[in-house]
Formats: sequence, structure tokens, C-alpha cells
Amino acid sequence: MPTQNRIVIIGGTACGPKATARARRLDPAAKITIIEQRENLSTATCGLPYFISGVITDESNMIARQNDYFRNVFNMEVLTHKRAVSIDRKSRKVEISDLPSGKNNTIEYDKLVIATGSAPIVPDWEGKDLDGVFTLNNLPDASAIRSYVKQLENKETVIIGAGLIGLEMAESFAKQGLKVTVVEALDWLLPKLLDFEVAAYVQKHLQESGIRLLFGQRVTGLEGSGGRVSGVITENTGIRAGLVLLSLGVKPNVSIARDAGLTIGATGGISVNQYLQTSDPNIYAGGDCVENTHLITGEKVLVPMGSTANKHGRIIGTNITGGNDTFPGVLGTAIVKIFEYNAGRTGLTESEARQYGYNVVTSLVPGPEYANYYPGGKQILVKLVAEESSGKLLGCQVVGPGEAAKRIDVMATALTSGMVVDDIANLDLSYAPPYNSAMDPLHNAANLIRNKRDKLARTVNPMELKEKLDNNEKFVLLDVRGEDEWELVRLNVPQSLLIPLPELRERLSELHTDDEIIIYCHTSVRAYQAQRILEGAGFKDVKFIEGSLSAWPYEDYLS
Amino acid sequence: MPTQNRIVIIGGTACGPKATARARRLDPAAKITIIEQRENLSTATCGLPYFISGVITDESNMIARQNDYFRNVFNMEVLTHKRAVSIDRKSRKVEISDLPSGKNNTIEYDKLVIATGSAPIVPDWEGKDLDGVFTLNNLPDASAIRSYVKQLENKETVIIGAGLIGLEMAESFAKQGLKVTVVEALDWLLPKLLDFEVAAYVQKHLQESGIRLLFGQRVTGLEGSGGRVSGVITENTGIRAGLVLLSLGVKPNVSIARDAGLTIGATGGISVNQYLQTSDPNIYAGGDCVENTHLITGEKVLVPMGSTANKHGRIIGTNITGGNDTFPGVLGTAIVKIFEYNAGRTGLTESEARQYGYNVVTSLVPGPEYANYYPGGKQILVKLVAEESSGKLLGCQVVGPGEAAKRIDVMATALTSGMVVDDIANLDLSYAPPYNSAMDPLHNAANLIRNKRDKLARTVNPMELKEKLDNNEKFVLLDVRGEDEWELVRLNVPQSLLIPLPELRERLSELHTDDEIIIYCHTSVRAYQAQRILEGAGFKDVKFIEGSLSAWPYEDYLS
Repeated sequence: MPTQNRIVIIGGTACGPKATARARRLDPAAKITIIEQRENLSTATCGLPYFISGVITDESNMIARQNDYFRNVFNMEVLTHKRAVSIDRKSRKVEISDLPSGKNNTIEYDKLVIATGSAPIVPDWEGKDLDGVFTLNNLPDASAIRSYVKQLENKETVIIGAGLIGLEMAESFAKQGLKVTVVEALDWLLPKLLDFEVAAYVQKHLQESGIRLLFGQRVTGLEGSGGRVSGVITENTGIRAGLVLLSLGVKPNVSIARDAGLTIGATGGISVNQYLQTSDPNIYAGGDCVENTHLITGEKVLVPMGSTANKHGRIIGTNITGGNDTFPGVLGTAIVKIFEYNAGRTGLTESEARQYGYNVVTSLVPGPEYANYYPGGKQILVKLVAEESSGKLLGCQVVGPGEAAKRIDVMATALTSGMVVDDIANLDLSYAPPYNSAMDPLHNAANLIRNKRDKLARTVNPMELKEKLDNNEKFVLLDVRGEDEWELVRLNVPQSLLIPLPELRERLSELHTDDEIIIYCHTSVRAYQAQRILEGAGFKDVKFIEGSLSAWPYEDYLS
Repeated sequence: MPTQNRIVIIGGTACGPKATARARRLDPAAKITIIEQRENLSTATCGLPYFISGVITDESNMIARQNDYFRNVFNMEVLTHKRAVSIDRKSRKVEISDLPSGKNNTIEYDKLVIATGSAPIVPDWEGKDLDGVFTLNNLPDASAIRSYVKQLENKETVIIGAGLIGLEMAESFAKQGLKVTVVEALDWLLPKLLDFEVAAYVQKHLQESGIRLLFGQRVTGLEGSGGRVSGVITENTGIRAGLVLLSLGVKPNVSIARDAGLTIGATGGISVNQYLQTSDPNIYAGGDCVENTHLITGEKVLVPMGSTANKHGRIIGTNITGGNDTFPGVLGTAIVKIFEYNAGRTGLTESEARQYGYNVVTSLVPGPEYANYYPGGKQILVKLVAEESSGKLLGCQVVGPGEAAKRIDVMATALTSGMVVDDIANLDLSYAPPYNSAMDPLHNAANLIRNKRDKLARTVNPMELKEKLDNNEKFVLLDVRGEDEWELVRLNVPQSLLIPLPELRERLSELHTDDEIIIYCHTSVRAYQAQRILEGAGFKDVKFIEGSLSAWPYEDYLS
């Protein structure tokens, strides 16, 4: 009879419980112990913003499985309100502190799993410990915020950081009648996830939903009164606040691993190999506390996601019971609901791709989520990023009121398999009018990149055009929409001109073949056609604005 | 100066207009002529069921671009109400018949495109020409059906054929207050697209929506009274009908190609190479009239889809103007909205895969469309099909009230790149509670196949269990849900037994290690866990029902 495998798991949120369940299914005889510092295992931390807003009413819904379920079904020891404080790798023991009593004891392991998660980043600001200053990382945090909101007199709420949690919480607070300001040190929302012009498309909606956005504002401290927070101080201004949420991202919890001498990567996460094994072969680690391999760049990255933590858990559960499963890596895929908009991305943004040194070609394509003749369809904006030389896909962003998750997941799959833009153009995606157009926006985005690489489509992006307009450059801005569309809204600059596309061939004499001509329409379909007509007629410097009016990210020049 | 390229395109629905537009963008000087036998180019034929139901109100919405738009923007000749009757390949001429006058003339080409589409299959039944007997292939068909419905006295409507169009029209007719019966010669709905147990999941919903379904009934003829249809006769019965829609699939329109001596494939579609070139290098063909290569089997198939026709059009437009683009093939991806359900598939069904001789492993996984704690989520049922020996993915079906198109499109992308089930298990799909669970049903379906291949999960499918029950086989049917769930609904057979999962380890003595034990719960998550508990305790013949109650396709044995 084999020796009983003693498995100890530190951390009970996502990776830990998943590893537990998998290990038990594979090894009915193992002795399994899980250590969790809070009250419950398997809390649904990704749902906390919705628990705070009341969309999810019952706290019990936030706990996937009760501790007794783990005990009874998985036949294991569940140690809650206990913290693992150190690892003795030589004698394979973990020292555990009982949090209520402060007493320590040790537990022996054959295989140890570190799933210690991550903690919110809290700068060393004056006032960070005032009442009413919160971070959101776990169920007790969420319950505390819920309670504080209920007795809040000053409804002005400041969220510091326009990342995923910050924006989910903006919606969550606004739904409770709070007045929300989001302060972000960088220049646009979701700055680590989206490029500027894509973020700008979401930004309008957020503002229309009543959220005040302050970009490029570095917070320097928090003000209080009577022990409670009363304001946020930035380099430029002060903002009144009855509640402040710090959502500046998270850092991996690696102190126990570092103290035990395990290798910590340059990212700050625990270094693991493809088996999710640390530098000690008897110790595995997964979830938010480890660094992952990025599938596009091959670089190590920190991308803390519940979905990744669950996948890690299964692989670790396999490997600590004698198996041999591997985790390939991540794409940094993310999605967030922001009021009625969806915002998702996978792979690299354009700015990330350029930072990594890729030669980049992109396309920016607005389009309906499904057949435009089928009623109720909403818009999306797709940005595709590829390598110019090879056409290899590097990343994708999709935002808007229309369906985004499908396109992101298709692109995540395409990126995983190393597809090029030509592959996307011919993907046999499901088509029927309630779901799609005959050509999906992804097909169109891929074809625009092909047309750009083939020097058929010549474009300026909105930022380039804005700069030209700001600099009063001389060129013709040609609108090829109908007069009715022009009346409603247009780019109103002196050099603008309207020639509806069906009249263009007859009215070529109104343009000069040597002029620089920049064309736009509603989505760029007609503008591209117009570009080809003019080039066919011998015009020498013709381009169109990518995304045209549908993707124009500024208030400027519109009327 | 090069000679002007004379391009002639036969057929103006989807592939033809797309080829036109692309060709014009690439070759400003070409002489382009399109020939269409009906009134309009670029009609949205996929939207016809929604035009008939009134979801799309205006006929003008069914025409993507007016004929004058083609003339003015693409600078081309649009010949409508004209039919191409023959091709003289030697002298490169097409003979055209003017339909109103019956006069013929000829037109010369350098490159010819055949985009003649497909026509509904109409068996040689007595009564097929009666008033009130329709097929649905084009806008005039739809207008005729709309008019006929308005003056219909007998509201009983029979749809012959439970394919995509048949089911879309069932909903369309029902929404207009008609009483709808669908008659299908095969044994379940969408028989060429879904496996039985997946179709059964949709079937319940269709019946609850008031549609009468008659399977395994071969129609032999139609009855009339006063020149109008009054009934449908099958081998077994007669059905009263004031309107009959024949939706038995389509056949490619290849007569002009065949008469010209072009190669027709064994499928009946025009044979083309990867450049969509026919056996005559100056003649290209695309859309419904050609056969495609199936990306999984490599075999030639007929899969008429508007999405494919558009992709063909772009490639042909490139190649007839000197380019070199290729079409890789199709997966038979399809999706259909059936009242409040979605039903999609891509790649091969299990039955198709077996017909092609693959050794097959499948998984049947019900699950919520997104995080079950986030309110409003609806169910989907995923069936994954893979090659047992290699784990290579072969196909996927997703049905239910929840989101299906996303999962189908992810799998279409995965199938295109030749992924194996392990790749799906670790796909970095977008995750946030309003969109997904931390583990998507696709992840779970892939992991179930991995567990089956690793001999960890042992299952019976619903059909196998039904057969065992029908044969009164001796085994223990173990329900591991809670008592409250058992009270609501259960598989009510004499050999059934309830032991809630958390009590299972304590109550092992109620079971015998030598018995055959088949376990179920609500979705199979608990049943799989129970299987592993029993096996860990030395039980020798334990399986669980795939999909458990959530995927039980029968009324039988339920109470």
C-alpha cells in the first residue's frame, strides 16, 4: 500500500478549492488540508461589485460551496481563520497561526500548494487609514462597503483608478444613488487594457451615465474630518468625498514564498514552470500570486483573473497527485460591463505591441452587432492589432453597447493558435440575422488590415487627423455621406466638403488631383470606396479616416 | 495601356454583388456587367423569415443596395429581369434572355463569374402546384407568402422539413397567429445539423411555443380544393392545411455551368479550386452554386450560406482582377433562433463523425450562460465531439435559451486551427460575471472529454440509459441531489435511490460494491464527484448520466 500523500493548500478562494477538488477526485486516499485566513472557502470575489450594488442580494450567493461541503464531499480538513506564516522546506512543514487565539502549530506536507492570491495596492498616502477609505478584495471588504454606503450622508464618492474594478464599482455606486467621480493618473480609462481611441468610445457612455471622469490627475493624499474621509487631494485640485475606493490594481501575495526562499520573478509574482511548480519541486503555486507566460510575447506577466486561477487549480490538482498537466499561458483577456456598454480586449493593445517592438498594423472598424435590417441591433467598435510584416495577429479590442464578448473570445482562440489576419477573414463563423451580419465586424476588421497591407486602403487614424486639424494643415476633408446625414452631424472645419458617394464620379472636377484629400462617412465603408474611386481617377494623395464619425473619439470639430 | 478587362457576373444576390464591388475597387478600368433575373441586386435573403413575420416591416430594408447605387458607385452595367441562358466558352460569350420580351442577345467576357445560387428542392408530389403551396428562396416568394397569409381563412399551416428555414418559418408563422405543424421525414429536428439528444433539448421549447412536430413522417402528396391546397398527405395520416411551405433544402443552380461543360462535383455543386476557379480558368464560381471543402474531413460538401457567399465574392473579385486569393473551406457552421432558444453547431455532429469513420469521444454538458450568482442567466447545453485517439476536435453543438453563438464561434475558430481538447480547456476566454463563469461550459465540456479519455469519468449517455430502462436491466439509479430537488422532479424507476452527495461517504453501506450504479444529479457535477467517491471506496461499476436531468431528452421516466 502506498504512503498516504499529504497535501496542504494555502489559500481558499479559487485556485485552492479547485486544486482540492481535483486532487481528491484523482487520489481518494490523500490527506488534504486547506488553510484560509477568512471565514469561507470559494468566495465569488469577481461578483463583489454586484453584491455591493444589490444586483446580487444574498451574501450566501457569494459563497460557491460551504466549508462543510468541502469537508463532507472531499473528505478533507478545512482550517479557516488560520494563516500560514512560514514554510520549512527542509522538513516540509508549514507553520500556521490561529488568528483568533494567536497560537501557532505546524502541519507536514508532501505536496504544498501556495494559492495566496493578491492584495490591493495601497500607496502610502496620508489619510489612507481614515474611515470611509476602502479597497475591494474580498467578501468582508464588500460587506463593509455595503454597510458604510447605507449610512453615508455625503453621497460624493471618489474612485481612484479607472481599471476593471474601478469601473465596475462606478456603476455599482451610481446604481445606489451615489455621485461618482473616477480619478485616473493616466490619460484614459482602462489604460492598461485599451488604446486611447477605443477607451474614448466607452468614456462618452460613462459620462452620459452620470460618472465624472478626471484623467491625468495624480492623487497625493486623502483628507479627513473626525476620523472619516472627507476629500481626495490631487496635484491640481481637491475633491469632496464621503467615501473613497482605492482601485489601483493588486500585487501578488508572495511573502511566505519569498521568505521560504522560493524564486520570485521580475514581475513580483512567484515564478513557476509550465507544471505550475515553484523552484521547489514539492511546492506548487497558482492563481493571482504567480506570474504567467504571455502567449504572444513569451514574456512573464501578472494577469490576476479568477478564470486563470480556476484553470491553475485543476492543473495543480492533477500534478500534486502524480499527474503531468501543463498550463500554456495567458493572453490578458478581459471584459467588463460598464452600464450598458461592454468593453473587452485580448492579446496586446497597439501601444503594448509597439512597446514590445513589433511593427504594427491596426484596423478600427465600427459595425452593427448583427444584421442591420434585423431590428434592435447595437453598435460595436473593433480594433484589431497585427504584425505588419507577417500579418500575425497580436490583439483585439471590442467595445460598445453591442455584443463584444463573442468577438473577444473568437480572437482569444485565434491568438492562441497563432492565426494571421487572412485566417480571420475566412473564419466560418455562425451566421443568421439575429446574431450577425453575413460579414462579421471581425471579418471586416481583418479585411481592412489586408487592404492596408496590400496598399489598397490608405487611412489616417482619428488621432492623426486631430493633430492635422489642430495644426491647421491644408487638406480637403471630404464627406461622402448624404445631405441628410451631413445636416445631422459633421466634422465642421473650413476645408470640409460634401459630395455624396453616388455623385462622386460625376463631380470629380470639384476636386484637384494633387490635393491631399481625407475622406469620411459614417463607418468608413463609403469612404473607402470613395478613396478607390479617386485613386482610380488619378488622384495622388487620398486617405480615409478609420472608423469615420462612428469612431471619432473627440468632442472637437463635431457639430 | 492594358486592354480593358471585361467582367461578366451571373447572379446578383450575395456573391455576385460582393465580387462586383471588390473587382471595381481593384480595377478602376474594368468593364463590369451583372445579370440578375429578378428586379433587385443584393437582396437580404437570410432575413426573409423575419420580413414575412413583420419583424422587419419595410421591403426596402430587404435590399442592401439599390441598383442605381451599383451603377453610380461601381460604374457598371446592371442588367435586371434578364437571365443568362448559355455560355460559349470558346468565343467567351454569354447568351442573355430578356425576360419581359423574350429576346436574346450576347455579351462578351474576359472573366466570367457564375453566382447562380440555389433553388428549393420540390419533390414531384401531386398537388405541388396548388395555390397556397410555397417555397422560400427570394423576395418575391416572401412577398407572395405575406400576401397569402393575410387572406388566409384556414389558419392551419404545415411546414414540410424541420431544417433551418423550416424552423425559422415555424416561428414566423406562429407570430402571425397561424397554427403550425412541422412534418419531418427524419426522427428529430435539424437532423442534418444536430444530434438527437441536442435536438430534443430544443424540441421541448418548440412544442411549448405551440408548434406541433411530426417526426418520421414521409409526405406523399398534397391535397387541394378549388385549386387551393387543403391538406398534406403522409404515409400514415392526413393533415389539414391552408398553407404549405416546402423547406426540404436547396439544390445548387448548375444547369448553365453543366451545359457549358464545366465540371460538376459529386455533390451536385460546381467544382472549383481554392481560387474559386472552375474547370475553365476564365470562369469563376461562388456562393450556393459551388461545392466547398470541409475543413475537418477534407471532403467536398454543399453548405449554402450567405456568409460563405460573401467571402467567395471578395475572393473572386480579387482573382478576376489579377489577384491570387484563396478560400480554405467551411465547417458547416450554422445557427438559428427558434423562439427564445438559440441552436448552433460547427464542424461534425457525432453521427456525422461516425459516418466518416472517426473513433469518437463526446461530452454533453449543461451549464449556465454566465456566473450562476449573477441574476438572469439562462441555460445552455454543449455537446463537444472529438477524436478519441488524438483528442482532435471534430465538432460542437450548443443549444438553449442562453448564449450559444459565442461558444459556436469560439469552436469554429478552434476547429479551423486544428485544436485538440486540451487547448480548449486552457483557452483564455473573457471572464466577468455578466458574461461567463470562471470556467465556461466549453472549458467544462473539454475537461469532461479529457476525464473520459483518462478513464476518470465514466458515463452513459441518455440514449444508453433509456435503452437500459426500456429493457428493464438491473442496476442502481442513484440520485445524489438534495431531497428538495428530488421532490420536484426525478427519474422515477423502481431501481432508483436518493443519497445526497454530502451524505454519500457516510452511507456507502447502503450500496453494494459489485452492483452496477448509474448516478445522476442536476447537471452531472455532483454525479461525477459521486462516481469518484464510489470508485475510491472500491466500487467496481459506477457511471454517471451525461448532462443528468438537465439534458434528459425524454418525457419517459420523469416525474
